[in-house]
Amino acid sequence: MENFVFKNDTKIIFGKGTENKVGNEILKYGKKVLLHYGGENIKKSGLYEKILKSLKESSILVYELSGVKPNPSISLAREGIKICRENKIDFILAVGGGSVIDSSKAIAMGVNYSGDVWDFFEGKIKLESAIPIGVVLTIPAAGSESSVVTVMTNEEGLIKRGFHSEMLLPRFAILNPELTFTLPVFQVACGSADILAHTFERYFTQTKNVDLTDRLCEGLMKTVIENSKIAVKKPGNYDAMAELMWASTIAHNGILGTGRIEDWASHKLGHELSALYGITHGASLAVMFPAWMKYVYKHNIERFAQFAIRVFNIDDSFSDNERLALRGIKELMNYFIEIGLPTSLKELNVPSDKFELMAEKAVVKGPIGNFIKINKEDVVKIYELAK
Amino acid sequence: MENFVFKNDTKIIFGKGTENKVGNEILKYGKKVLLHYGGENIKKSGLYEKILKSLKESSILVYELSGVKPNPSISLAREGIKICRENKIDFILAVGGGSVIDSSKAIAMGVNYSGDVWDFFEGKIKLESAIPIGVVLTIPAAGSESSVVTVMTNEEGLIKRGFHSEMLLPRFAILNPELTFTLPVFQVACGSADILAHTFERYFTQTKNVDLTDRLCEGLMKTVIENSKIAVKKPGNYDAMAELMWASTIAHNGILGTGRIEDWASHKLGHELSALYGITHGASLAVMFPAWMKYVYKHNIERFAQFAIRVFNIDDSFSDNERLALRGIKELMNYFIEIGLPTSLKELNVPSDKFELMAEKAVVKGPIGNFIKINKEDVVKIYELAK
Repeated sequence: MENFVFKNDTKIIFGKGTENKVGNEILKYGKKVLLHYGGENIKKSGLYEKILKSLKESSILVYELSGVKPNPSISLAREGIKICRENKIDFILAVGGGSVIDSSKAIAMGVNYSGDVWDFFEGKIKLESAIPIGVVLTIPAAGSESSVVTVMTNEEGLIKRGFHSEMLLPRFAILNPELTFTLPVFQVACGSADILAHTFERYFTQTKNVDLTDRLCEGLMKTVIENSKIAVKKPGNYDAMAELMWASTIAHNGILGTGRIEDWASHKLGHELSALYGITHGASLAVMFPAWMKYVYKHNIERFAQFAIRVFNIDDSFSDNERLALRGIKELMNYFIEIGLPTSLKELNVPSDKFELMAEKAVVKGPIGNFIKINKEDVVKIYELAK
Repeated sequence: MENFVFKNDTKIIFGKGTENKVGNEILKYGKKVLLHYGGENIKKSGLYEKILKSLKESSILVYELSGVKPNPSISLAREGIKICRENKIDFILAVGGGSVIDSSKAIAMGVNYSGDVWDFFEGKIKLESAIPIGVVLTIPAAGSESSVVTVMTNEEGLIKRGFHSEMLLPRFAILNPELTFTLPVFQVACGSADILAHTFERYFTQTKNVDLTDRLCEGLMKTVIENSKIAVKKPGNYDAMAELMWASTIAHNGILGTGRIEDWASHKLGHELSALYGITHGASLAVMFPAWMKYVYKHNIERFAQFAIRVFNIDDSFSDNERLALRGIKELMNYFIEIGLPTSLKELNVPSDKFELMAEKAVVKGPIGNFIKINKEDVVKIYELAK
């Protein structure tokens, strides 16, 4: 186990009706709020009205910025920063999924900085302060509701980049599984792939003696696999969505990565697909993770065999670790297919002519990943494996 | 799953050499510290000197109170409160295990309260403020390093009582597995029973649809069982102690109980043994938990069968749930025996003549537990089962 520091102080407010408490939670931090969200969905579902009511009851002044899209753009965040500055807004309420939360984090970063917020994503400047944010979650997936990370897309150059700071950790996250009932089944499946991917990035490590976090990761993976199958078959199942929702947060709040060196190459491979072709994040991960696994498993076959045995219950008397490892990857792909996700670039209509370009962008800051270090040639080969 | 609120902001600083950073961590909160500990152990091991050095480097003024014993007494806490008041101390550093941390929490509670600190434990008064505390942990067991709970013993009447408040959550906990290397093997075993007991109190619930926390509990239990066996056979094994140390914190930081109704009857049964006979907390739990399990398993045989299958890998083709449940309890007792713990009151030299008295004290505030409600007659029967 590696030395580590772990702290996560997001207050999780979980369960039915909890969105009605949002005004009261915000009062601890501010009185002027930017309500940031995607589009019409929260109005159709009635969530928008409930939130406005709660904010009104707490005498909170509300400004609004909607229009967040998947793979959120830095230009909309710039607009949010302008609104916050002009109106001296002191709190941002994100109502939505990972894209809305990430966009809110970008806004929170930019308000007190005189330059352009993209500077942070380019590593040009250190974050000194951010205004507080809170979340009402509607999609169990990204884990951004209790993470220090934001991933934004700069439309100029189609660049998708992450930034992380403890200052970005939401002060609270309201998780009511009922708010997910209007999600399309495909989005539930993509979310499940995203939750699993966050766990894979931590689970597939070369760090030795990480029994506890191994077991916690495996328990979370089994839970997500079982419950996502139910959730796509029976939309609106509270119990299944509750498991996915709490799993989405725990998968990315940092606890599963404690004492381990994490990987994160597959996310970068997926980000290039999203930046260039607008592929949904979770779908890109369902395609790229099995390909990455096939490319790297030989560098720690025992770990991949353990994954097959413990997560997919494959008989461990089957003593050949390589066959076990490959069987685990196959089972993962079968699972993705079962919940309606693509497992190849072909299904995503991604041609192979830009593999070189995407590979170049993926390693622009140097080799990626830690399970093994991956350079440009490796990235091209992994895209080839995903075809 | 039940609605819940979860927040835990203790900063965990884990790994080799981390105790040398303690001064720097305290500086965020105060400049005058009460160093609270047990006895000579931390001096023999060299930890005392390291801590004083770190505090000196941060120009922190140090006052000391040693003498904490297992089942910590409210009278020593009163002494600590006096020292804190007289010297305007603004931070308490607990160096030790659960007893030292619990005693530190009691001191922290009493400093700003004009009455007697035991009033809080009797429910006479609400806690309004507490001074901040930090921890350098030397025993992986109680989980008090990242919990909101303190359990203290009042020598007058031999009463052991708990109190909890978010204000008692330590600001930081330094966890270096090396600091546990001087622990006697019996104490490592007792600590492991304590960690498991904290997980059992959450795992054995009647709440339905708690898949994720079930799986997380099971993963933690398996890790503790495997690594405690190594730890008692090979004292000073860093990897095994690291697993136990991180498990001790996670078992009691609240996350495993989210969305579940917890039980806590067995702890009360154990507390009476400690209060009357001075039995080590972990040993009392190794005796009382199997007895409690035997008494209650029929009220949810499926859950006890799941425990046997998932934690002890008992073949689930063995279709009789009752036999599975009993087999799981038996395996747990075998495990306790393997790591050198008692599993009967006889081994603890506890006679049966005070069962009635202990039972009366255990239910003095009404029936205990939630898996099933337990009254005085039940308690006597459970003590009988533990004979």
